[in-house]
Amino acid sequence: MCNMYPDDGFALHTDLYQINMAETYWEDNIHQRKAVFDLYFRKLPFGNGFGVFAGLERIIEYIQSFRFTDSDLQYLKEELGYADDFLDYLRTMRFTGTIRAMEEGQIVFGNEPILTVEAPLIEAQLIETALLNIVNYQTLVATKAARIKHVVGNATVMEFGTRRAHEFDAAIWGTRAAYIGGFDATSNVRAGKRFGIPVAGTHAHAMVQAYKDEYTAFKTYARRHKHCVFLVDTYDTLRSGVPNAIRVAKELGNNIHFAGIRLDSGDLAYLSKEARKMLDEAGFTDTKIIASNDLDEYTIMNLKAQGAKIDIWGIGTKLITAYDQPALGAVYKLVAIEDENGNMVDTIKISANPEKVTTPGTKRVYRIINTINQHAEGDYIALEDERPQEEEKLKLFHPVHTFISKFVTDFEARDLHKEIFKDGKLIYSPPSLDEIKVFANQNLAYFWEEYKRTLNPEEYPVDLSQKCWDNKMRNIEETRERLQRF
Amino acid sequence: MCNMYPDDGFALHTDLYQINMAETYWEDNIHQRKAVFDLYFRKLPFGNGFGVFAGLERIIEYIQSFRFTDSDLQYLKEELGYADDFLDYLRTMRFTGTIRAMEEGQIVFGNEPILTVEAPLIEAQLIETALLNIVNYQTLVATKAARIKHVVGNATVMEFGTRRAHEFDAAIWGTRAAYIGGFDATSNVRAGKRFGIPVAGTHAHAMVQAYKDEYTAFKTYARRHKHCVFLVDTYDTLRSGVPNAIRVAKELGNNIHFAGIRLDSGDLAYLSKEARKMLDEAGFTDTKIIASNDLDEYTIMNLKAQGAKIDIWGIGTKLITAYDQPALGAVYKLVAIEDENGNMVDTIKISANPEKVTTPGTKRVYRIINTINQHAEGDYIALEDERPQEEEKLKLFHPVHTFISKFVTDFEARDLHKEIFKDGKLIYSPPSLDEIKVFANQNLAYFWEEYKRTLNPEEYPVDLSQKCWDNKMRNIEETRERLQRF
Repeated sequence: MCNMYPDDGFALHTDLYQINMAETYWEDNIHQRKAVFDLYFRKLPFGNGFGVFAGLERIIEYIQSFRFTDSDLQYLKEELGYADDFLDYLRTMRFTGTIRAMEEGQIVFGNEPILTVEAPLIEAQLIETALLNIVNYQTLVATKAARIKHVVGNATVMEFGTRRAHEFDAAIWGTRAAYIGGFDATSNVRAGKRFGIPVAGTHAHAMVQAYKDEYTAFKTYARRHKHCVFLVDTYDTLRSGVPNAIRVAKELGNNIHFAGIRLDSGDLAYLSKEARKMLDEAGFTDTKIIASNDLDEYTIMNLKAQGAKIDIWGIGTKLITAYDQPALGAVYKLVAIEDENGNMVDTIKISANPEKVTTPGTKRVYRIINTINQHAEGDYIALEDERPQEEEKLKLFHPVHTFISKFVTDFEARDLHKEIFKDGKLIYSPPSLDEIKVFANQNLAYFWEEYKRTLNPEEYPVDLSQKCWDNKMRNIEETRERLQRF
Repeated sequence: MCNMYPDDGFALHTDLYQINMAETYWEDNIHQRKAVFDLYFRKLPFGNGFGVFAGLERIIEYIQSFRFTDSDLQYLKEELGYADDFLDYLRTMRFTGTIRAMEEGQIVFGNEPILTVEAPLIEAQLIETALLNIVNYQTLVATKAARIKHVVGNATVMEFGTRRAHEFDAAIWGTRAAYIGGFDATSNVRAGKRFGIPVAGTHAHAMVQAYKDEYTAFKTYARRHKHCVFLVDTYDTLRSGVPNAIRVAKELGNNIHFAGIRLDSGDLAYLSKEARKMLDEAGFTDTKIIASNDLDEYTIMNLKAQGAKIDIWGIGTKLITAYDQPALGAVYKLVAIEDENGNMVDTIKISANPEKVTTPGTKRVYRIINTINQHAEGDYIALEDERPQEEEKLKLFHPVHTFISKFVTDFEARDLHKEIFKDGKLIYSPPSLDEIKVFANQNLAYFWEEYKRTLNPEEYPVDLSQKCWDNKMRNIEETRERLQRF
């Protein structure tokens, strides 16, 4: 793609205020102080009971290539008026911090750090916007995909949304996220090439129109495409499309494999049942019926309830745009910072809105697995010096309604974070995309069905350790006191 | 950004079925037949009365750089099994057709071609997916922006949505579309650099937290940033934030310009009114109040009705994701194709859904401007050989409810399409982004307020010429007869 800047990079893919803050820190000489930021969302999207994390691969690419290019610095100087001394600093700046994060495909919940950055304040600040941009979208789509996959069950489900995606990047990173969340294939060829996702597709209405009649179109298509799926709704599904498909399949016999027909409009329940009968009567009992047309988990559940005979589902718009909730609200909050004496001090963001109060301190997220039934009891957020895996008994209590509590004894506490970057170096070997997909599926197996149903799932516990909770309360009190003194 | 393919291009940014169809056409030797495709949406988004077209610049880049790279061809061969003969054809394929399109910033309505491609069938087919991907998103956001701008009036409105955008491309192309639709600035620095959009931003909560107290944070920030906007809601807007901002501004006096305060949470109506009083009483009557926090046209209208004292609006999520309707359903339909004798033949796509029936033939879209009042009477779709601008009297009638009709006499018929590519060559000089923005605004002035209000606007007429309508009816009849013969 042509671009007036041959050295286009992503360091400027940020909000201007990040650069203003960076300049303030640098000018005040606190930019090298170590800061700890947590990245997390507060509320699961779509009313779902769990989320599926995606975005780490793109974050790794972004961090590794993070640098202000010559044209970036020129723009900052000439158009925005930043001074040379600060720009000289930016010129050689690289990310030198540590990032701990969940792995892609990990099951994630509200209010637990998906990712924690420990880095010089200025670096941690400058990467915020891009990290949120990546995690918010990819995690949203992976979660939506998992929701749809849950309803679809063992049937095949394919991503067809490129034309409705929010520009090019969303199309390819979205389909990658969908694959992690449980989808089987995509129509986007570039995503297939880049990520190794299986690609799928047949032909469109235009091809049928390009020929004098549907029969000729199907027959011509079948000459080169032996694995035949015919789109049967260009003129009239049951009077024209299905009969023409059957006629061509009979005529060509063993020269082709009549793999399927695709329905893309009309009453999918009725049409699929009638088409199934016609196919079966003609002896094509193995020929699949593929359906598409603005489908999502709700329409699929309805179609299944009506006994629709659909073997393969193609999902476009509703998945790739996360149509019913097109934004995840992940945030990136400062939770600790080095003071002038080199000591780490916790920080808090107070809000009139209780769920917007941050949880101070450097923390770890543990998944508490019951070793008897191998199911997850809850996630447990502890301060970094705590060792819940060494405890005999763990008290889990609701961080807001604290009287809701339980003790667990036979458990394993799994640290959900891996170290991705250490002192600026990538020390994590990303698994293959297929491994990530398997990992996501295996992780889901730890959760009771009650958390996974699409409608009104039970709320999975994400609790703070007593120490972490006490620390949060102390920070709230101290901030309140400071405000009253004012 | 690292990528395993150094020659990553966008020819594969398409649905697999396009390549299957391309192969079918090529194998059947009809790939060079001239085909005409219309790109249009059927229904305006958000219940809005008009749309704003955006996306042409990106389309021009895409078409100009369209080619299958070596790694593309290798992937198609080795992973997808396409044969060498067909791939050899693709290797040298370039776009050689003609594209006529509306200009960016043009006001657009449902069921009228935004863009028409006349090209060898195979080329027109292969570019479909990318064109839709671009137009659907960018036009959606430009339209949403125009809606928001309509409610905001003369106040300044800024795009703040990068962190919630659907990946990187959406952030920058979305903010460009927003600028066309009426926004004044963006927080995304890369978009500022690449497109020349004014960038804006202050500081975030993290900066306040990075210092011992809010006062110190503001004062430090003001050292380097003389044009000061302080974010005042980190701890307590009225008890801490605004008083600290005023204190710093008083202490620094003429050393800074106390440009504004920003409210990012809480009751924006109440807080803005109280903050306005405090600022005014302290003598800062020119200091602006900037508000953000999940705003859209509805919340803005409500805040204004409550008398909120907000001068500048920052809009993030709801704009960049087009939250209340995150997809525009533009389609790309074959309307004419060359037959074996070299004659152009109209094509139609029939559907049980009347509004999904396509309008056959190569057409032109005219905007009928009343020369007495300089307002638009309607858009008029005619066949390409018609010359409405030479008619004395024009009959406009509703294409579905045909009895709704009117005659116009004193009118000008403006062809809304420009020739962008001719025989593969770019012959259009794109205006600058600022010219596009002015053009959009000027275009809006042709429309009565009744079409522009955000709630329940009047439906603007998009009519077919009698000849175009007759041609459509004839095509429907002929297709019906063919189906009955079957």
